[in-house]
Amino acid sequence: MSELKILLSEKEMPTHWYNIQADMPELPDTPLNPVTKEPLGPQDLAAIFPMELIKQEVSQERWIEIPDEVRDIYRIWRPSPLIRARRLEKALDTPARIYYKYEGVSPAGSHKLNTAVPQAYYNKAAGIKRLSTETGAGQWGIALSQACNFFDLECTVYMVKVSFNQKPYRKSLMEIFGSNVIASPSNLTESGRKILAEFPDSNGSLGIAISEAVEDAAKRDDTNYALGSVLNHVCLHQSIIGLEAKAQMEKAGFYPDVVIGCSGGGSNFAGIAFPFINDKIANKSKTRLVAVEPISCPTLTRGEYSYDYGDVVGLAPIMKMNTLGASFMPPGIHAGGLRYHGVSPLVSKLLQDGLIDAISLGQTSVFQGAILFARAEGLIPAPESSHAVQAAINEALEAKEAGEARTILFNMSGHGLLDLPSYDLYLSGKLEDFPLPEEDLKKALERLPHV
Amino acid sequence: MSELKILLSEKEMPTHWYNIQADMPELPDTPLNPVTKEPLGPQDLAAIFPMELIKQEVSQERWIEIPDEVRDIYRIWRPSPLIRARRLEKALDTPARIYYKYEGVSPAGSHKLNTAVPQAYYNKAAGIKRLSTETGAGQWGIALSQACNFFDLECTVYMVKVSFNQKPYRKSLMEIFGSNVIASPSNLTESGRKILAEFPDSNGSLGIAISEAVEDAAKRDDTNYALGSVLNHVCLHQSIIGLEAKAQMEKAGFYPDVVIGCSGGGSNFAGIAFPFINDKIANKSKTRLVAVEPISCPTLTRGEYSYDYGDVVGLAPIMKMNTLGASFMPPGIHAGGLRYHGVSPLVSKLLQDGLIDAISLGQTSVFQGAILFARAEGLIPAPESSHAVQAAINEALEAKEAGEARTILFNMSGHGLLDLPSYDLYLSGKLEDFPLPEEDLKKALERLPHV
Repeated sequence: MSELKILLSEKEMPTHWYNIQADMPELPDTPLNPVTKEPLGPQDLAAIFPMELIKQEVSQERWIEIPDEVRDIYRIWRPSPLIRARRLEKALDTPARIYYKYEGVSPAGSHKLNTAVPQAYYNKAAGIKRLSTETGAGQWGIALSQACNFFDLECTVYMVKVSFNQKPYRKSLMEIFGSNVIASPSNLTESGRKILAEFPDSNGSLGIAISEAVEDAAKRDDTNYALGSVLNHVCLHQSIIGLEAKAQMEKAGFYPDVVIGCSGGGSNFAGIAFPFINDKIANKSKTRLVAVEPISCPTLTRGEYSYDYGDVVGLAPIMKMNTLGASFMPPGIHAGGLRYHGVSPLVSKLLQDGLIDAISLGQTSVFQGAILFARAEGLIPAPESSHAVQAAINEALEAKEAGEARTILFNMSGHGLLDLPSYDLYLSGKLEDFPLPEEDLKKALERLPHV
Repeated sequence: MSELKILLSEKEMPTHWYNIQADMPELPDTPLNPVTKEPLGPQDLAAIFPMELIKQEVSQERWIEIPDEVRDIYRIWRPSPLIRARRLEKALDTPARIYYKYEGVSPAGSHKLNTAVPQAYYNKAAGIKRLSTETGAGQWGIALSQACNFFDLECTVYMVKVSFNQKPYRKSLMEIFGSNVIASPSNLTESGRKILAEFPDSNGSLGIAISEAVEDAAKRDDTNYALGSVLNHVCLHQSIIGLEAKAQMEKAGFYPDVVIGCSGGGSNFAGIAFPFINDKIANKSKTRLVAVEPISCPTLTRGEYSYDYGDVVGLAPIMKMNTLGASFMPPGIHAGGLRYHGVSPLVSKLLQDGLIDAISLGQTSVFQGAILFARAEGLIPAPESSHAVQAAINEALEAKEAGEARTILFNMSGHGLLDLPSYDLYLSGKLEDFPLPEEDLKKALERLPHV
């Protein structure tokens, strides 16, 4: 029988990240300065990012070399395995071949470490002493905490309040790695105080936490800001997932008919999908690339493609992207990492240009898929990753309906071992779907900036 | 630079378990029937174990073939990686080479799945419908729950009450895989009721939970009992750890000077160490094999080598082993899997015969080592595994003192992602060591059975 796990050796780990900006038929519109509303220049970003990351943000080089110091840490868990989900295929009685790229083997438990490590590295190299960031469910906060620990940087994490309360283990893990974890909105920043004055019981959101973290970084010279998704350099770093997966699929002898990733800020999906897009642009494949988001926060499927703020308060750049409006407050779903009003400008532009697809799923069907997967494959997916799991299950069932042995690849981006209370709630029937009402969407979109 | 992770392909996975009984200079004394106190025969065990496991319990064949159905599930995570702890070496500034075999990659999060899978398999093959078991910290309960799920068996887990309360996530995980989890001592068994009558506030112990699980299995024809450690067949199944590690150390080009495993019931240590013992018996190596236990439950270092009951109530066989007395109630340390009054008769006999060593460590030093390891290597060790981690650190510091480039191998038997509240307590200075007072030990040993 062929092997379940398709492994690459450390020597086969990619030496370069893949930059999709080199291959896009058209680039996204330039981001704007949130105050002047003029096109953003490198100097606008220099207060919160090191120059190497700013360069990557705008680079159009196809391949960008991964520094040795970053590869040396990647080696702790990379290359990550590609696994054939034979037991899941059997459970579904499908002719489809289901493969998943398993990023949960990272010490942080998710793909987020792929970008946390280079971000910490470039900041350290630039003489920065401390990073500030936001985190939703905590996956990103853990990753940045670990990366800062590896490079001996201080780290302060503004954690969205609903997740701070739902996921105390993630907070513990950040503290083990030496980070300072603060429930957001907090009283420590002007942005936080502004929100609390208006909504004292606010559950928080990624948009608010970003405001707090950006403000924190902007006001201290020794501190920079790190973002776990959305930006071009984050998508760049995550490309290592798809690059490895492509090499592994080649070893397996199949090219995927569909590639699936969940989408919050978009870098998870970008990581698995972008390295397959250039084949599509070059008309060498008809592979569908599917981003999966929650119906409660349907940025790609129901948002507007428009210039909008990246954060709630208006400190982050204005970007052309799919958005539900920066003031949109997503309900407290358990996939905290997908609770963001906007999405990567690169992903948004590719959707506009018809190169990728997007779908949305309800929370209960997502957990149903997660349990089916867990019982078949043994691994517990994170609620975010479970969106990709359930979409892959749906694809496999469609393949069964069509009687076709399609090849499905999805990004199992992290484990859910620190999300078990969410599973408890699902199993006791207490989870809801929270589809976004049309009138709420309309209201949120009314507040888009006029640029 | 040489690779950090020494991997084996699925094709290189061992096809046979190693049975140390074939190579021991002298075998342990035969276990006794707890009622008649006569030597135990296969028929005594048939009420709670399938015949294949009973045969393995007494077999003196050196190599026992791993069934295809078991290997097929092992392939989900096996062979597990052997990892060079280069960052830990650097943090300790030691000339020692530190390698760890990482069993936390199993979907159950620990080495326990190595024996849970064959136990479920042999029971299923024997027509059994349901298994009962005990669990301490929950690692074993999760493993058996997963294994039962794979083979479509029902599973009831009696979980030691102190861990049931300390580690709710482990309980959730068992329930995801469909198990029924009961806090022990419970009112559901005569054994549990007996303990509760005498000690209504009992925190429970492995010895009590075993009584409940054995009683449950003995009174139902469709139910067998499964034990996660102590017994010969469990040590046999765990030998796959050491067999793989031996092949991997050979690839790395070093033979270990010391092999370390933590010890509760003993199968964790047996798994990593036994495959190295035959070289020692054959005078081909002088490698030290070190079992590490808590100072609060010092079975190997301070217990008596004597016949004793395997459980508190006296339903399990009487075995010749190192013991603190079946009535001994270990304090509620966070390494719940090490809270057992006895230890594997095979491990005990090897200690008697001078083929292995044993040491004990306090809980605070163990967590200190765990944090050092986590910050260096990224992975959070389970509190049980942390005993091996801290012992390896001590060995590396001794090698530094001696100026010798010794090679250290230890079993990192599971991750501690579901033990984070214990880390919180350690970091806030709330953990104690609980060394066993001499008078308590004396008192516990007074109640050994007279055989």
